[in-house]
Amino acid sequence: MSQLTIWTLDWVPDRPRGFVRDLRLRWACEEAGLPYTVRTIAFEDRATNHLDRQPFGQVPYLDDGVVEMFESGAGLLHIAGKSETLMPTDSAAAAETLQWTVAALNSIEMVTVPWWFLKISGAENAGLTGWMEQRLSRIEEVLGEREWLVAGRFTVADLLMADVLRVPDVRAFGHRPATEAFIARAIARPAFAKAHADQMALFEVGDATRS
Amino acid sequence: MSQLTIWTLDWVPDRPRGFVRDLRLRWACEEAGLPYTVRTIAFEDRATNHLDRQPFGQVPYLDDGVVEMFESGAGLLHIAGKSETLMPTDSAAAAETLQWTVAALNSIEMVTVPWWFLKISGAENAGLTGWMEQRLSRIEEVLGEREWLVAGRFTVADLLMADVLRVPDVRAFGHRPATEAFIARAIARPAFAKAHADQMALFEVGDATRS
Repeated sequence: MSQLTIWTLDWVPDRPRGFVRDLRLRWACEEAGLPYTVRTIAFEDRATNHLDRQPFGQVPYLDDGVVEMFESGAGLLHIAGKSETLMPTDSAAAAETLQWTVAALNSIEMVTVPWWFLKISGAENAGLTGWMEQRLSRIEEVLGEREWLVAGRFTVADLLMADVLRVPDVRAFGHRPATEAFIARAIARPAFAKAHADQMALFEVGDATRS
Repeated sequence: MSQLTIWTLDWVPDRPRGFVRDLRLRWACEEAGLPYTVRTIAFEDRATNHLDRQPFGQVPYLDDGVVEMFESGAGLLHIAGKSETLMPTDSAAAAETLQWTVAALNSIEMVTVPWWFLKISGAENAGLTGWMEQRLSRIEEVLGEREWLVAGRFTVADLLMADVLRVPDVRAFGHRPATEAFIARAIARPAFAKAHADQMALFEVGDATRS
């Protein structure tokens, strides 16, 4: 088995801690029991210091010894392909898992991230609020009918959807009890707790080198 | 081989014609030489008349006889999995194709679609313009160095990226010659022309039943 390496920043300010997207890949590896190491690039000059590997200057990217890839959603699907824990082998369930993974990326996050981006930028975001309300209420209905999105058990689709929905401003938007219960179930998993603690610890090391 | 069925609306107004996302799946099937049929649901009450199959009330969804799935990005990857024409079999090239497909969904469309949505809604969208400019200029640099995104030849990643970038308001944004040449190369393909013509013809039939 090739060794997975997850690349992230060596430090971030307080607010994004616990939400930097290397957490998605760490969480997936923890769920699947796949060994991995974490390596870092400098926070300073992050917009331009790794453009040869990530054209948008973002993290994470993933190296499995053979393949190097960016986009956390792609990294998740790549890791999921190595483990039935994350991706069912039954073809119909696998297709449904792919569908909900892409839904998290392109139907939910495509609304929540720009809404949140405008909110934290202090720009007008009211134009996206109705759209977000519609998308989140539909997810609330879906989650009111099932514990996990696909196949009656946790998959990579739940991992990503929960990570998208747990962003504090999004989580606080409206009253959506089924969604809240889904997030609580997902982040109560030991694999999430480990991934989260490890990310927090890494950035604390970054604090020390900057103090 | 199971028969693919692409579901779309039976009619749309003039403006979205040629851009409804069933075109992505048609185009993929045409590139891959996979037989498919197109079936429709009513434009009227489209927000609620197929929520049991598409929780956000959108089209397309794809039925391959075994699997039924929504999200055009997921449908594309599912179709691509049936054809080396769209998805290289080499594992590194496949991972890179997945990466660029997700980049189109989650790094480009996540900015361009909300920007466009706010624009056509008449709402303030200036807060997203700088972000879009950054993303599109990075893609411009990438496309300045290569004809196709992956493996030196057309893949499903190009299909999706071109479809995301050819939206008229996005295409008209800034001066990006490499992107423009990329879009022109992609939509000059006979498979795109066939998919586009077939979508236009379908909606013309819808005109007739509504006149």
